[in-house]
Amino acid sequence: MTSLIELKAPYLLFLGDAESNLSAKTASGIAYWRPERSLGQLRLAGAQADIGLPDMTLSAAREAGARTMVVGLAPMGGVFPDAWTALAVEALDAGMDLASGLHSRLADIPEIAAAAGRGTGRVLDVRVPPEGLPCGSGQRRPGKRLLTVGSDCVVGKMFTALAIDRELKRRGEKSDFRATGQTGILIEGSGIAVDAVVSDFLSGAVEVLSPANDPDHWDVIEGQGSLFHPAYAGVSLGLLHGAQPDYLVLCHETGRRYIDDDEQAGIPIPDLGRVIEINLDLARLTNPDVTLAGIALNSSSLGEAEAAEVMENLSGEFDLPVVDPVRTGVAAIVERLI
Amino acid sequence: MTSLIELKAPYLLFLGDAESNLSAKTASGIAYWRPERSLGQLRLAGAQADIGLPDMTLSAAREAGARTMVVGLAPMGGVFPDAWTALAVEALDAGMDLASGLHSRLADIPEIAAAAGRGTGRVLDVRVPPEGLPCGSGQRRPGKRLLTVGSDCVVGKMFTALAIDRELKRRGEKSDFRATGQTGILIEGSGIAVDAVVSDFLSGAVEVLSPANDPDHWDVIEGQGSLFHPAYAGVSLGLLHGAQPDYLVLCHETGRRYIDDDEQAGIPIPDLGRVIEINLDLARLTNPDVTLAGIALNSSSLGEAEAAEVMENLSGEFDLPVVDPVRTGVAAIVERLI
Repeated sequence: MTSLIELKAPYLLFLGDAESNLSAKTASGIAYWRPERSLGQLRLAGAQADIGLPDMTLSAAREAGARTMVVGLAPMGGVFPDAWTALAVEALDAGMDLASGLHSRLADIPEIAAAAGRGTGRVLDVRVPPEGLPCGSGQRRPGKRLLTVGSDCVVGKMFTALAIDRELKRRGEKSDFRATGQTGILIEGSGIAVDAVVSDFLSGAVEVLSPANDPDHWDVIEGQGSLFHPAYAGVSLGLLHGAQPDYLVLCHETGRRYIDDDEQAGIPIPDLGRVIEINLDLARLTNPDVTLAGIALNSSSLGEAEAAEVMENLSGEFDLPVVDPVRTGVAAIVERLI
Repeated sequence: MTSLIELKAPYLLFLGDAESNLSAKTASGIAYWRPERSLGQLRLAGAQADIGLPDMTLSAAREAGARTMVVGLAPMGGVFPDAWTALAVEALDAGMDLASGLHSRLADIPEIAAAAGRGTGRVLDVRVPPEGLPCGSGQRRPGKRLLTVGSDCVVGKMFTALAIDRELKRRGEKSDFRATGQTGILIEGSGIAVDAVVSDFLSGAVEVLSPANDPDHWDVIEGQGSLFHPAYAGVSLGLLHGAQPDYLVLCHETGRRYIDDDEQAGIPIPDLGRVIEINLDLARLTNPDVTLAGIALNSSSLGEAEAAEVMENLSGEFDLPVVDPVRTGVAAIVERLI
């Protein structure tokens, strides 16, 4: 049995010298979605970011019960600066775990590896997939599953999945958010970064991530990439097949016409009807009963009235709930589900 | 620039104690497709396999100019037995390279790693992808590309691609076979095992494998898996997008109705019209001009007359050349290409 990473809460969110909340968006996401796991923030001199948690030193956080220091920002180049190593070592030596979603592994930094070796603190590089993942079986398993899929990358698949999971729980449903990327894993405390999985085991990884469950239990699975993205469509398809979703929710950003928002590269995003059709068509391989539960728009480029009009029109066109998770919440989709 | 593995010819093909030519099918494939690279075979006491090459000791092969000893069989469990380590060390110490497509890496065996460290012989575990693969760009590149795609795994995609490459060369065309699996890599001496690539870099790996070339040059790219295989469809889609093929050749085994030939698992292979439609549909993302060049059947389950009838019917149905690469060769497809 492959075992997934498990972060111990509560967290001390490390913001480093982040110049803005945007560069500390991992920490912001954790504090927003999991306030009950977020004890405080640790900022270095010069940091401009502030995610609204109490400022704490390492020892104060430890005293207050923090069990994991989470690297909550994306430093330049995705590399953990040498200047921060001493602090990471101090956290480990204090018996705290250290969790990171950076591309470069903290466990590869000798001083950090040494500290993890001599004490009880663990280094959790959450992008590293678990050992021993199987190939996918494609066999149906009990439990209800919803997967967010995208017309492109960075259109709100994680946000939408988290919002749906929260809304299901609010209504008393049994639900788990299943994280497939580093930020989602740090938010949930568990998951598998599927794009870091060797291709052969991609579907199998998702089967492990979302195992058999009670028939009335929901797994709300975070989508990755897009079937229409030339670099990542394989990831999206492996995820789609491994998830064997009963429901898809299509995520899209209004006004985006080209993949990666890159008009020069010139790969157009197909019309939403086709995006839906292809996703459903391919999803049927492992779940013939899959349906679309709704559309989640990121309409931040539009004014309030214009956004409402777009949602209404799309809702009419596809005869489905259309929401903007930020503006309207996802209740309309969840009502349809339960 | 990522550099691909390159095996040095000629080879001494190591058959170990293979009980039959079937268990030595890697060696058989190399000897069949690349006789000019295949110097001799090395069999241990008790081996029943014989691929028709001269038997040679290690030192005789070295004397005759062999530059690489290739592990040409799949031992039980995919693991290189301890009993063979001494011979592998001897080959390396004699300055020969040692190449293997086994799942377990020869470079992880301490004695073998030590021998590679002290001399000039290299250990080439061909399933290990090169370092530094990029994400896919999806941008068009010059040169003509053909990809074999399958209705399922193990339906003849490698054989068909090798046959088409050979037929193109025979007709004076510039062509390269681009290997995407371990056996293909050992045959060609180069390639990338795409199913061992981290998902994020899958399409990018194929872009590296089949780079920009002369406009009249052919890359004949070995397909993997199937868009209809629940475990491997993601691999197939990443490969399809990275290859950005001008032509697809669909490979299918007559009579096979279920994925993995597993009726119990019960995932049906769609009818060929749909297999073709979905492959073309998804391929258009990175090459809108893609077309189907023909169908390659493995009709070994049928008698001669029956096979001919099936091919004729399919050819009429799809208005395309339909061949069995073993029975009829692939000339009909290549004629259509050039």
